This record gives sequence, C-alpha cells and structure tokens, in this order.
Amino acid sequence: MTVTPYEVEGEVDYAKTVKEFGAQFIDDKITKMFPHPLIKKKYFYAHRNFDRILEDNQKGKKFSIVSGRGVSENMHLGHLICYKFIADMQKEFGCHVFIPFSDDEKFLYKQNLAFEEVQKFDYENALDIIALGFDMKNTELIFDTLNMPQGLYNLAIKSAKHITTSTVKCALGFDDSKNIGSNFYPAMQTAHILYPTVKYGYPVVVPVGLDQDVLIKLSRDVAEKMKLRKPADIISRFVRGLSGNPKMSASDPQNTLYTTDTEEQIKKKLSNAFTGGAPTVAEQKEKGGNPDVCSAYEYLGLFFYDDPSELHEKCKSGRVTCGECKKELAEKMCKFLKAHQAQREKARKTLDKLLQK
Amino acid sequence: MTVTPYEVEGEVDYAKTVKEFGAQFIDDKITKMFPHPLIKKKYFYAHRNFDRILEDNQKGKKFSIVSGRGVSENMHLGHLICYKFIADMQKEFGCHVFIPFSDDEKFLYKQNLAFEEVQKFDYENALDIIALGFDMKNTELIFDTLNMPQGLYNLAIKSAKHITTSTVKCALGFDDSKNIGSNFYPAMQTAHILYPTVKYGYPVVVPVGLDQDVLIKLSRDVAEKMKLRKPADIISRFVRGLSGNPKMSASDPQNTLYTTDTEEQIKKKLSNAFTGGAPTVAEQKEKGGNPDVCSAYEYLGLFFYDDPSELHEKCKSGRVTCGECKKELAEKMCKFLKAHQAQREKARKTLDKLLQK
Repeated sequence: MTVTPYEVEGEVDYAKTVKEFGAQFIDDKITKMFPHPLIKKKYFYAHRNFDRILEDNQKGKKFSIVSGRGVSENMHLGHLICYKFIADMQKEFGCHVFIPFSDDEKFLYKQNLAFEEVQKFDYENALDIIALGFDMKNTELIFDTLNMPQGLYNLAIKSAKHITTSTVKCALGFDDSKNIGSNFYPAMQTAHILYPTVKYGYPVVVPVGLDQDVLIKLSRDVAEKMKLRKPADIISRFVRGLSGNPKMSASDPQNTLYTTDTEEQIKKKLSNAFTGGAPTVAEQKEKGGNPDVCSAYEYLGLFFYDDPSELHEKCKSGRVTCGECKKELAEKMCKFLKAHQAQREKARKTLDKLLQK
Repeated sequence: MTVTPYEVEGEVDYAKTVKEFGAQFIDDKITKMFPHPLIKKKYFYAHRNFDRILEDNQKGKKFSIVSGRGVSENMHLGHLICYKFIADMQKEFGCHVFIPFSDDEKFLYKQNLAFEEVQKFDYENALDIIALGFDMKNTELIFDTLNMPQGLYNLAIKSAKHITTSTVKCALGFDDSKNIGSNFYPAMQTAHILYPTVKYGYPVVVPVGLDQDVLIKLSRDVAEKMKLRKPADIISRFVRGLSGNPKMSASDPQNTLYTTDTEEQIKKKLSNAFTGGAPTVAEQKEKGGNPDVCSAYEYLGLFFYDDPSELHEKCKSGRVTCGECKKELAEKMCKFLKAHQAQREKARKTLDKLLQK
C-alpha cells in the first residue's frame, strides 16, 4: 500500500492509515452534530479538530471550508462528491467557502502540461463546482494564474519562510531534480488553507482525500508558527475507479467517469465496469457477490442511496445480480449527470462574470 | 576573494572575475555608442550582449532596462549611482525602465526582517528612485508584495518550471535548510528580468553589480529554454565603503552613506572615512597618497568629477592632502544629498498616487 499526494497504490487500509497519520476517527458526537449521509456511510471517516469547528459553530462561531482544486483534467465523480458535500455543508451551516484553483501546481508538477491547458481546465472545473448550487455571495473562487489576490501571494511568502526544503523533501519525497516551483508550491497551498483565517478570522476546515493529509499537517505546523488557529480537516476515503481500483484518477480515462461524459460514454463505461459478482448468474444467486470491491455498488451506494446497507445485504446474499445493479446504476447516473450538465451550462454566466470575460 | 550574491569579501580582482564569469569587457565600440562618464571611468566595465542592444537601438529598436531593488534598508550611494546611470540612459535612449522591488526576497532571506519592515523600505527606496527624474510615463515600479501584476506571478511560475533545486544550490550555495521561498526566489527574479520582453517584446539590459551576475546567467538560461531573447547585462564594480572596504553595504551603517543622512551625519561619517593618504601631511607631500584604496577619492571621482584623472595624479604626487579632499567632498556631498532629499520629498505625491494611498 502506498498513499502519498502523488501516488496511491494497492488496497488501502483506511483504519491503519488514520492511526499512522495521527488523525481521529469520526465518532457519534460528530455524526450527531452533522448527520450527513456521507458521514453516516463513513465516506468521510476521519478528522483533525472537526469536532471543535462544529462545537464552536453551535456557540455561534462562523467558519470557512477550504477546498482546493488541482486542475489538469475534467472533473470526475470523486471530485464531484466532495464538492457536493461542501455545498450541503454550506446550506446546513451558512459557512463561507473558499475554493482555490491550483492551476500553478498542476502546471509545475506535470512536465508536459501547457499553461494554456491548465487555464482551460480552470474554467471547465469551475463550471462543475458552480453547478452544485453554492451560495455565490458566500463563496470565493480564486484561480492562482488568473485572479490571485495580492494577499494570497503575501501569505504564501510568509508561509514559505517557515518551511524548509528539507521539510518538503521529507513530506513529499522530492529530490533536488524537482523544479523550484514544485518545491515552493506547499507554501502556496498552505496560504490557500490559511487565507480565510487571516482575511476574515474564520477557523478553517478542509475536506481532503486521505492522500492529501500530509499537506494539511504541514499547514497546521505553519499555522502554529504563525500563531494562527490550526486548520481542521475531515478526511475521506477514495472513490473506486471503474476497474475496481482503489482511487478514481482523472489522468486514467478508462477507469474514470467524468462529469462531462455523454450518455453514450456513461453507458459504455458502466457496462464495462468491474463488479464484485460471481462468474455466473447461477453462482451469484447461490453464493452471492462481494459489494466491497464492486464499482457498481460503490457508485449506487455513494450517489443514490442514503443508506445502502440493504443493497449490500442483497448483493451478498445473491438476491440481486450484477446486470440488475448495472442497469439501475446506468439509468440513475445518466439522469444525475444530465441534470448536472444542465446546471453546468447555466453556470457559464456566473463564471464569465466572475472572470470578467 | 569571495564574490557571491550574498557575500563580498576581500579585494576584488575585477579583471579576473570577468574572465571567470564569462562576460566581456566594455570596449571602445560601446563607449563610443554610449559615452557616459560612468562607462568612461570604467565603473561599468563589463557586459554580456550590451553591444547588441545598442546596435539594435541605432537601427530604431526599442529596449528596456530592468533594475531590481532589494529593499531591506534605506538606499546608499552605491544604489543611487546605479539608478542615476539608468535615469541618464533613459534620457539618452528614451527607453522603457522596469524597476521591480523584491521586498519578498529580502523578507525571505533575512530571518529577523519583518514583513511590515520591508514594505516600509519599499516606500522609502521608491522615493529615492523617483527623485532621480525618471520619465514616469515610461517607467514601471512594481512592488512584489504590494502591486504584483498577475502576469509577473505567471511568468515566475513558467520560469520556475525550468529551474531545478539542484541548479539553485549550485548557483547560490543553498542547502536544504533554506526556506522554500528563498529557494523559489530566483524564479521570481528571472520573471522580473524577462517581464518587458514578454509583455512588450523589448530586449532587456540589466545593469548589475558583479555579485549579481550569476543570477543574470540563470535568467539567460531560462530565456533560452523559453525561446525568448536573452537579457543583456552591464556589469559595474562596487562602490567602496567608508572604511575603504570593497563594497558599501546597507546593512553596515558605519561604513555607509545613506541617501537620507543628515548634513551632520554626512560630515561626521566623511571626516572619519578611510583615505589612501600617508601617515603625516609632510610624508603625503613628499611621497604622495594612494587614491586607489581611498574612499574620499572614490566618491569625488564617481560623483563629482567627469574625469578624475587629474585628481588621481595630484594625490599620487602629493599635491593634495587628505584634509583638502575630505573638505571638498563634504561640501559637495552635502549639497548633492540636500538637493536629492528635496527631490525625494517632491516624489511623495507621485508615489502615493502610484500606490493609490
């Protein structure tokens, strides 16, 4: 098992990593304060100081959610579910949302990715995010190479003074052959995370995939050195890829369902998706399937069932076949993404205004 | 002898360094095209491709001078003479001048320097520069932490992609204990240098002290990789400090004459200045002095004589005493800096408008 910001390999032992990374499991206290389906389903399963954010909020203290978007491709289901969760959280708590687009990071990290290309994906990804229904009066979208505020650059410089090359090498596995922009980027990411605290005095919570957790720890260290409140985080597991691999990845098109896929593409991809079923229908009915490795169960459970436990049971006991699940999933996913794509088109006006196009 | 961007020690062998650094001496062809006193006096004595800039200019091609200002103290005579030279060059050639203030660099490099402090010196240093009579319609002042254009950040990111940590370590002697902002800064400096080429298509010439030459070489390498015209430079020797040390340094107040010093301070400092005179007046008259190590001769020659060769001869032959030189220097310097300080006060209005204060 490898889990770093740049590589996820092998089946992930989520319980083990929480202990290794020094985070906490989400407990009943948190679930009671924020009983979101993705928390109850343990998609978001661990955290650092998220309980404090919620407790303070119950006493009337505002907070901000920061969720950066690294743009190098179109968005996929794994991205969408996270921003949907954040939009729900904003509705629930009326909180500020700050979404920095780290187009600079992706340009720097990917040797063959052109500057114009990341800026194109800035626009495409922002459409997906706005489409989710954020309260745009209380939501800030910043694109590092398009409309970076001076205050953000300054905060990156202040953060950078507290991070050595040695620390970045340890945290991210870099060596001297890395370009100096990649080496600097953790300071910019820290600035993204601390920005609402510095600008508005809001405590921050960052929803992150497990692989990004090390960068949150880095930001927490810098916050402490700068005498700022440490950012909290809420850690999710990954969304499985279509082949059943542990993490859907935008740079692996065959295993990924993009938000912009056509109905035809969605149906084709889902019909080929890896399931946890038995080799034959007869065997499936007799011995049952394994929903825990199944991509069809993954998407049905995450996107379309508030409580997927009954489906889980039906699969294990052989009362549902892979064909049935795939059919249900394809119908629901097509409908869901069609509705999303319609909202996405409507978002153009908002985004063009934001970018003063 | 040590000459790096962060340390100058020992008597500097200027001829040797030109060969070592791979630059060219300024020859008669250049002096003929631009017979400025500081070139004739060999204060600016070496270059890279400056001849091409002048030749192209004779054919009608515009160019830009870039001259960054690292702000951590008030400006001193060594800074002033360089910007005066640039103002003269602008008058002569009508060229564009770009002056980036690297307040970020100084904040990052100096452990105990506060952010507010560098921004204070931004303002103070800019007054000195504007006071020199630049054509403000054709001059851009950019302060990295106050009014950085998005295009400059983007250019820094593009430059950074071409510079490895390994290169910075070799060029500047950094190690892993450096903060990642310091390590990144050469990309920002490169962006400063290439900015007028990218924004306006102007070829660039950078007047630099010998110690900064390595950073110009780095920018030239990046320009080549980005398929941009390589920046030219024109290299100066250093202005001696008051103790006769080879380089006046703003962080060494006792050896430095600041542009903001009062008449009283100027007189006091100059009366204590190191000269090349003999131990007694009698001996001086008999054996003569050594103007080549003398700070009084240095400032008289650089600031107040278009051709100091006669004074040089008079000193060597004992026809002038240190007391006489110091008296002449104090009078002239007080008058010169008083006039400068008056212009400096007038510059506030321009600067406040620029910073929209």
